[in-house]
Amino acid sequence: MELGVGIIGHKFMGKAHSQAWLDVAAFFPDLGVRPALKMMCGVGDDVPDVAAQWGWEHSTQDYHELLGRDDIQIVDICTPNNLHARMAIDAARAGKHILCEKPLAMNADECLAMVQAVREAGVKHQVSFCYRRCPAVMLARELVRQGRLGRIYHVRASYLQSWLTDPQRPMVWRLKKEVTGSGAHGDLNAHIVDLARHITGDEIAEVCAMAETFVGERPAAADPARTERVTVDDALLFLARLRGGAVASFEATRYAQGHKNDSRIEINGEKGSVAFSFERMNELSFFDATRPRAEQGWTTIMATERDAHAYVAAYWPPGHVIGYEHQFISQARDLLEAVACDGATWPDFVDGLRCQEVLDAALVSAEQRAWVQVEQRQV
Amino acid sequence: MELGVGIIGHKFMGKAHSQAWLDVAAFFPDLGVRPALKMMCGVGDDVPDVAAQWGWEHSTQDYHELLGRDDIQIVDICTPNNLHARMAIDAARAGKHILCEKPLAMNADECLAMVQAVREAGVKHQVSFCYRRCPAVMLARELVRQGRLGRIYHVRASYLQSWLTDPQRPMVWRLKKEVTGSGAHGDLNAHIVDLARHITGDEIAEVCAMAETFVGERPAAADPARTERVTVDDALLFLARLRGGAVASFEATRYAQGHKNDSRIEINGEKGSVAFSFERMNELSFFDATRPRAEQGWTTIMATERDAHAYVAAYWPPGHVIGYEHQFISQARDLLEAVACDGATWPDFVDGLRCQEVLDAALVSAEQRAWVQVEQRQV
Amino acid sequence: MELGVGIIGHKFMGKAHSQAWLDVAAFFPDLGVRPALKMMCGVGDDVPDVAAQWGWEHSTQDYHELLGRDDIQIVDICTPNNLHARMAIDAARAGKHILCEKPLAMNADECLAMVQAVREAGVKHQVSFCYRRCPAVMLARELVRQGRLGRIYHVRASYLQSWLTDPQRPMVWRLKKEVTGSGAHGDLNAHIVDLARHITGDEIAEVCAMAETFVGERPAAADPARTERVTVDDALLFLARLRGGAVASFEATRYAQGHKNDSRIEINGEKGSVAFSFERMNELSFFDATRPRAEQGWTTIMATERDAHAYVAAYWPPGHVIGYEHQFISQARDLLEAVACDGATWPDFVDGLRCQEVLDAALVSAEQRAWVQVEQRQV
Amino acid sequence: MELGVGIIGHKFMGKAHSQAWLDVAAFFPDLGVRPALKMMCGVGDDVPDVAAQWGWEHSTQDYHELLGRDDIQIVDICTPNNLHARMAIDAARAGKHILCEKPLAMNADECLAMVQAVREAGVKHQVSFCYRRCPAVMLARELVRQGRLGRIYHVRASYLQSWLTDPQRPMVWRLKKEVTGSGAHGDLNAHIVDLARHITGDEIAEVCAMAETFVGERPAAADPARTERVTVDDALLFLARLRGGAVASFEATRYAQGHKNDSRIEINGEKGSVAFSFERMNELSFFDATRPRAEQGWTTIMATERDAHAYVAAYWPPGHVIGYEHQFISQARDLLEAVACDGATWPDFVDGLRCQEVLDAALVSAEQRAWVQVEQRQV
Repeated sequence: MELGVGIIGHKFMGKAHSQAWLDVAAFFPDLGVRPALKMMCGVGDDVPDVAAQWGWEHSTQDYHELLGRDDIQIVDICTPNNLHARMAIDAARAGKHILCEKPLAMNADECLAMVQAVREAGVKHQVSFCYRRCPAVMLARELVRQGRLGRIYHVRASYLQSWLTDPQRPMVWRLKKEVTGSGAHGDLNAHIVDLARHITGDEIAEVCAMAETFVGERPAAADPARTERVTVDDALLFLARLRGGAVASFEATRYAQGHKNDSRIEINGEKGSVAFSFERMNELSFFDATRPRAEQGWTTIMATERDAHAYVAAYWPPGHVIGYEHQFISQARDLLEAVACDGATWPDFVDGLRCQEVLDAALVSAEQRAWVQVEQRQV
Repeated sequence: MELGVGIIGHKFMGKAHSQAWLDVAAFFPDLGVRPALKMMCGVGDDVPDVAAQWGWEHSTQDYHELLGRDDIQIVDICTPNNLHARMAIDAARAGKHILCEKPLAMNADECLAMVQAVREAGVKHQVSFCYRRCPAVMLARELVRQGRLGRIYHVRASYLQSWLTDPQRPMVWRLKKEVTGSGAHGDLNAHIVDLARHITGDEIAEVCAMAETFVGERPAAADPARTERVTVDDALLFLARLRGGAVASFEATRYAQGHKNDSRIEINGEKGSVAFSFERMNELSFFDATRPRAEQGWTTIMATERDAHAYVAAYWPPGHVIGYEHQFISQARDLLEAVACDGATWPDFVDGLRCQEVLDAALVSAEQRAWVQVEQRQV
Repeated sequence: MELGVGIIGHKFMGKAHSQAWLDVAAFFPDLGVRPALKMMCGVGDDVPDVAAQWGWEHSTQDYHELLGRDDIQIVDICTPNNLHARMAIDAARAGKHILCEKPLAMNADECLAMVQAVREAGVKHQVSFCYRRCPAVMLARELVRQGRLGRIYHVRASYLQSWLTDPQRPMVWRLKKEVTGSGAHGDLNAHIVDLARHITGDEIAEVCAMAETFVGERPAAADPARTERVTVDDALLFLARLRGGAVASFEATRYAQGHKNDSRIEINGEKGSVAFSFERMNELSFFDATRPRAEQGWTTIMATERDAHAYVAAYWPPGHVIGYEHQFISQARDLLEAVACDGATWPDFVDGLRCQEVLDAALVSAEQRAWVQVEQRQV
Repeated sequence: MELGVGIIGHKFMGKAHSQAWLDVAAFFPDLGVRPALKMMCGVGDDVPDVAAQWGWEHSTQDYHELLGRDDIQIVDICTPNNLHARMAIDAARAGKHILCEKPLAMNADECLAMVQAVREAGVKHQVSFCYRRCPAVMLARELVRQGRLGRIYHVRASYLQSWLTDPQRPMVWRLKKEVTGSGAHGDLNAHIVDLARHITGDEIAEVCAMAETFVGERPAAADPARTERVTVDDALLFLARLRGGAVASFEATRYAQGHKNDSRIEINGEKGSVAFSFERMNELSFFDATRPRAEQGWTTIMATERDAHAYVAAYWPPGHVIGYEHQFISQARDLLEAVACDGATWPDFVDGLRCQEVLDAALVSAEQRAWVQVEQRQV
């Protein structure tokens, strides 16, 4: 069985997702369904070339053309945040199943509209919180689920990057609020808020945040003599309480020298702890406090065992480590299966909404310098 | 030259400081001054034995007796927090130079009274923020001082322990507010607030805190059938801004499985970062972003070079790692020298006050659920 | 421009290489040449399915059929070791450019015949010493080349796996001498001998080896009640001297619990050291003894910088780590370029021969329990 | 009860042992016996000062004077290797219990004479293989004893230092064969051969070694214009087989940049592995292959639990790491107890002999370029 896929976006995420569609059937031959890479949509002269490069049959600059094709069942949205809602709603109305990059939209209201649209249309919907499917992260979640950590006391998450450290680095679209909604916050905190939800199965109840823009003006990309205003946060930290009683901290920044793509989460419970850092994505650290005291310690688990770790059987033998793109391949696999078998997708647009509600509350908190409750919209 | 020392306190800290007084002259023969271990004061039947064990000539249960001795020039206060102010003020009035355990007192007002007392008496005063004198920490401070990190963007500090994780662990004095003032906060945040000040040379301007007591009642030590109320925080986290513009986070907890005595601090600047964790106290991690890009990375510096790292020349050859007590030995060395040569002490009671002002502000913030400015008392 | 590729072998290596051919043009669009996946050859009923899965147009069970096709310019040999020589020589005679898995053959004589065949045919030849092209390994080599390590004193290499630890694990072809020539030695030492040559640019002059077969009989795969003799080494260690004066040690084993695919090499020189372990393949450790003593330490370089580390520009942004297969993709890229532009290949069959001469000497040494000189055949 | 101690040697080891005698009674108050630091013997003008510094009552330049004192029951020999045998035999004849630095002597014959002397005299005898008493090493041994590793396949030990890397570093006595017997070999391999015996409980049966002197002439310390010949090995590596069937490798060098005092050992068994590195001496790495496969990994055990790790109860709370000297304090404690209670010492002179037999065999092997059996003398 073959499912036609169309992708919107031909830059970084467009390429990462393309690679997943290109490889998924090779790695998962037993899935019984393979994608047909029908069309890539993007804006720019290079779209046809990029499309050909990654194996897409056709290309276009108009996403409506893509949505209008009968041979496309799945639409993969890899555009800047401000386009997600409109495109996803249009795709739903066109009856397409949807994979959408994170954060799901510019704010929770947009997310809610998207949830309503996909529900009305009865299409599958999945958000690309890619780190969920790291085998090491899947193991962390499984350990929590099994009660191996007991009562959760602490969640400690940070997503540290460093690419803005230099004040002379020119302006990019990621620093414009009208395109992204926020800065490090929506880009990075979105991931770790989702990881906290994914691994603990709990929800964030209230937050207190602090935002900072370290460098307020940057040289314009087109004309370095001119500067443009940065209108988003460079860093956003927040404290939080989870419904289950745990306390938590989250931090996103693009100013942490030494951290390139360091998405980290640690969870401390009564009986044990887990810790993950993306830069060593094949490894999960697990502290099991139920072991004999003489032997307790942090165990660095290389999550590359075919018979024990999620998705690994499809890839390489033990210790033959996987990389960034495998998360996208596994994600594509699961969506294909959900569509083919009418199964459940995860994380879905409701997860995207829940994450956004936390992000929105944190932004309000940072502005008001006060604790803010996270209100969950009914869906 | 010999200086008489008297110590008040004969438990954990009393022993750690005793070991320092016992060894300091052996490790630092060129200092020209050695301590005479005159008297230990404590409460309990075991005081004479403990005193003899650690080489103290005399013992007493009455600290006034100790303060009254002419052969004692230095008084070392290792008692619970609620006794610091009274004892230090009495010691100052008795003309003794003082080393006092941290946190300096129960609150900033007490600290201020202590500062005034030592100034009036003209005695030397030093606070036992022991981690300052780790060679690795000294190196971190030196790198910041040299401008190797450039503008500081982030301070990220946590002090994680796990000894309260078990809800059945019986009550101890450290969980009673009247004795300690606070829980993990005063015990642990005191250290990392001081480390942040020490390394950055900057002051904390405002804070927003969250406190949590995970286990509100614990079995009484004397009668496990009965429970007693825990009246302090089990964990206290806070966000902060430094005067120089950096954003910061601090976290103290006794509920983090896998962390035994994990006092950590990381500082990210425009040109580099440093990171330290006490559990690997011989190592400093340094990221130098001015190196060629191909070679940039976190350098794990083993701070055991005699000709390059503070205090090390007195101890062992390179790679022959030192332990917890060396911090106290180095601290004793510096106080002896300051007294003998009428030199400066550091950190002194003003540092203790500054730290306490931050701790106090954080406690108020946690109670009021609001940002609180740290006000510096004039001294 | 398109180059037709045929692959022989459809198991582990066949798949790893297939993935490279499938993705290489997408990751390296500017190369100007792309492979056309023409035919997969293998033995077994599943060959057509595996071929289709990985995008090969045709499949066969007869490699002569593959060699006979005019639309194939490159032949990729991924079969067991005992077939390499025959297939490569046939391929050369058929005028095909060749990529061959390691070790190049069963012994140096076979290798020599292969070298002669490809030279006579004037075809490109490359050996799949895949670890060479890890960006971190490439950096290690570059540092040595720049003289950053100064005179080399030590090479310390080991390749540790653990899949045979259980004595009940059934027999596999890798444990039969007639198929493989040797056990852990040819499979694993081949890689680290090559890495030592690659990074140091030096040759191994003499060796002294010890071989061990820990489990001499294993259950037959087809009939566990019956056992079969293991006829290869389970572990083989050897000491060595390099021509340039360095001393070296090599160890290969399949019995090291805790090591899954742990290919390691460390090189110590007068001015510095480098260390690499495949299980953290994105990282190179570099100790630069020319730095100020206070700052010397092991720097963990994440070799993911587009503008500074080999091949990375084609993959993901900094810190978005790559995995096992990228080595094969980079290897395929370089071969395509060499064929298209009539450029040099590396490592070529002469490198395969040089490695095999060392392996052969070590086998003789282990048998004779004596030091053995490595003689280099003239080519 | 008090036991008089006399120490011979006032340099590095003399100081390290002095610190142990100074502190041992304070850390181990329940031992019921404390040392009286009676006399230090050394050669040089500074002996009286060093003696006073470390708390020794008297000093002398003549070790016979020390041996002649009635108030000394224990003699601690910290002199260069070529003096051990004579002094130990004299001490035994004087009826003194003996602690002797490693390696026990210049060769196995000397060791044998020492064993005979202490046996005839009926005195206690202990060798200062200090690393044995690291709590982490004690745990490794305990795990092997409990059968947690199952059959041992591999021992992999190295002791890497870097202090000779610079060819211009002047001559020292450690590089003269007549004083030391060998270079890195006796100094460093002695420790790791002992660790291998200590942890595995097995004996080394045969060895094949390679020695290298990288820098054959060094500036004389007194007159840098003149050079002196280095007459010992700079590095010595050897392969070995243990009686129980394991294969092993050992490496000692003073030319490994990046390693300051890196004494390492790793042991791989059927059911698990352990690994230790002195530079992180508070940690043991344990891989337990009997855990569920999903959770298997290297566990970094911080061996600082009072109720679970050897000696720790006497020192600090969990995570308050210990340093180099605690090994000597624990060693002094055990010897005091053995003398006071007429108990067993370990490691004793027979252990010193067994280690020396291995070292001697390796030296012969390096010279003969051949495998050499380790013959155990009857004692």
